[in-house]
Amino acid sequence: MSFRYEIRLSGAGGQGLILVGKILAEAAAIYDEKNATQSQSYGPEARGGASRSEVIISDDDIDYPKATNIDLLLAMTQEAVEKYSSDVKENGIVIVDSSYVKKAPEGNFKVYSFPITNIAEDEIGKKIVANIIALGVIVKLSNIISENAVINAIRARVPKGTEETNIKAFKHGIGLVSTQ
Amino acid sequence: MSFRYEIRLSGAGGQGLILVGKILAEAAAIYDEKNATQSQSYGPEARGGASRSEVIISDDDIDYPKATNIDLLLAMTQEAVEKYSSDVKENGIVIVDSSYVKKAPEGNFKVYSFPITNIAEDEIGKKIVANIIALGVIVKLSNIISENAVINAIRARVPKGTEETNIKAFKHGIGLVSTQ
Repeated sequence: MSFRYEIRLSGAGGQGLILVGKILAEAAAIYDEKNATQSQSYGPEARGGASRSEVIISDDDIDYPKATNIDLLLAMTQEAVEKYSSDVKENGIVIVDSSYVKKAPEGNFKVYSFPITNIAEDEIGKKIVANIIALGVIVKLSNIISENAVINAIRARVPKGTEETNIKAFKHGIGLVSTQ
Repeated sequence: MSFRYEIRLSGAGGQGLILVGKILAEAAAIYDEKNATQSQSYGPEARGGASRSEVIISDDDIDYPKATNIDLLLAMTQEAVEKYSSDVKENGIVIVDSSYVKKAPEGNFKVYSFPITNIAEDEIGKKIVANIIALGVIVKLSNIISENAVINAIRARVPKGTEETNIKAFKHGIGLVSTQ
């Protein structure tokens, strides 16, 4: 059976989750030679300011590019937790940003809670890199994309001049998991 | 039966096609109150420098976010023409950038050919807005998203300070069709 891994990135508009999705998909496909799709749905939620992006990574063609059985959920707001944690599969992974999520989800999945946005502000000095810290946490916990592939994709995708700050944020995210 | 419209944007990496997809999806969903999905596939083609983005617009939920019966294809390279024009449905629309596409496709669809990149360079003075000129052509020919919705989405999405140039490029694209 072919390998398929489903990631949903959820939170508010402006948190940079679509960029995280693009970096994950490009890292997997361009630098790690897997197949990947990245998609956004826009509808009533987007009109309310919510943001959702999905990434599917596979070693085979991806015929159905919608996440239905989520391996890993990133939830950057309480609303995202309430709405999406029930879609996570048994023994899946939920990562929450405890800067915004005050009530962690309960279910048959593993929950990892870090004050991601606060860490971005206090330890990197830039709240805007919270998404890239979250990317580090995702890459470490999912363990399906090489860290070097992600670093290459970060360099290719973030605004010129911000590469080193973003790579620092990414490594900080990796470290959050390693030192648990 | 519910309304569903499938758009595929194809060309080379760096031509800004993913931004066009995002603007179309946001215009339809956030400003025109339809539903939309926007997706990218990454795989062997992306490793070779090709780019493909898909937008699906519907008045209903979008359960299958992959384009299978294309209403409108934008092809910004010859390779994209060769690869994708056979996926366009009968009486569908193919738009080609004749700056790069030297051999227009043949089939049971309508073909619109404009030297989009050359026009961007010569008439707007910025090659980089070729994608937004193409957006204008798409919006005019597809006739399913309001021009005002697209202008709002352009303002929200393009880099600060470039809004007016991009809106000028968009209107130029609209005008290319109107004056045929």
